[in-house]
Amino acid sequence: MKLYDMKQAPNPRRLRMFLAEKGIEIETVQVDIPSGENLSDEFKAINPRGLLPTLVLDDGTVIDESVAISRYFEQTHPEPNLMGTDAKSMALIESAERHMEFDGLLSVAEAFRNSNPVFANRATQGTDGVQAIEALVERGRNGTARFFASLDATLADSRYVAGETFSIADITAFCVVDFAKWTGMRLGDDHPNAQRWYAEVAARPSAQA
Amino acid sequence: MKLYDMKQAPNPRRLRMFLAEKGIEIETVQVDIPSGENLSDEFKAINPRGLLPTLVLDDGTVIDESVAISRYFEQTHPEPNLMGTDAKSMALIESAERHMEFDGLLSVAEAFRNSNPVFANRATQGTDGVQAIEALVERGRNGTARFFASLDATLADSRYVAGETFSIADITAFCVVDFAKWTGMRLGDDHPNAQRWYAEVAARPSAQA
Repeated sequence: MKLYDMKQAPNPRRLRMFLAEKGIEIETVQVDIPSGENLSDEFKAINPRGLLPTLVLDDGTVIDESVAISRYFEQTHPEPNLMGTDAKSMALIESAERHMEFDGLLSVAEAFRNSNPVFANRATQGTDGVQAIEALVERGRNGTARFFASLDATLADSRYVAGETFSIADITAFCVVDFAKWTGMRLGDDHPNAQRWYAEVAARPSAQA
Repeated sequence: MKLYDMKQAPNPRRLRMFLAEKGIEIETVQVDIPSGENLSDEFKAINPRGLLPTLVLDDGTVIDESVAISRYFEQTHPEPNLMGTDAKSMALIESAERHMEFDGLLSVAEAFRNSNPVFANRATQGTDGVQAIEALVERGRNGTARFFASLDATLADSRYVAGETFSIADITAFCVVDFAKWTGMRLGDDHPNAQRWYAEVAARPSAQA
């Protein structure tokens, strides 16, 4: 199998962390988003959406979306468990993971994509010809600030994002916090619980993946 | 258990269709989004994100996000299967479901939220004080048009959105197509495959849920 990847981008990183936690190694092919390689005919023949990460199985099956690819490996390599072990824990982890994506990742991406000149004409991912909208920079930054506050509140009550066990929700949250640095936004002194959690996750070997 | 629901909103509808396919009945409480009941102190005490659907289990556990709640019931009521039976089918259905959400639902919501006066000051869901941005109406409509084209292309090759079996990806897609009507956008003559699929899904009893 083969994984289409980009070292610097947040969504491929989420998957690489997930794979590192499971001890899975896969052949990767780097695709450069800033230069538009993900929108080339060659890559769109593999994934018409032009998105990373994209996994191609040995039988030619193509799977995109980092959470869906993670689901594949959660089934083939169940240990360590990262997506829940029963109905309740699976649902709570999936819910928490989606909070990190919809409240966090989308906000940071909005601020980042609409302020970086590289993406002036590709303001939504996988597209060409979608113009940046200046008002979205502030909206994305405000959303990121709300996300930081909500992450801190969540981590006041629990060790990890979805409870007492490290999960895919922590991976997404950690990659979002690092992605936010690209927009100049960081966890601050008013986020002591998130800071404690961040330091713990950053010390895991998978954080280097 | 208790389900916080709103009859007219697309995300609660996705879950109701999922439950209807499984033959599950739950006590529901209607929460009115247009009047802001979802942002009231009373509802935020249940779900601080102010979002629907929200499920409260008998032990008090709160789960939001329709896909996460669906995952819970997929585990407790495995038949009929709607989220895959093995690593590959689970990943492909999750990937397809996310295409419907990120490419479809987010585009329609963008066009709807930023053009409806009711949401002029609540342009992102679960928030108060986020102003509508006029340029997002056109961006959302363009995204919806791309989504319709891509849905039609997907359904040229397969009976359902994620292959030959009806799944949660069809439920999301169907609810997105109906939600798009609120912005005046409908599948057209250039989407014959999507039209064939829509008629088939609309004939299922769950479409009335």
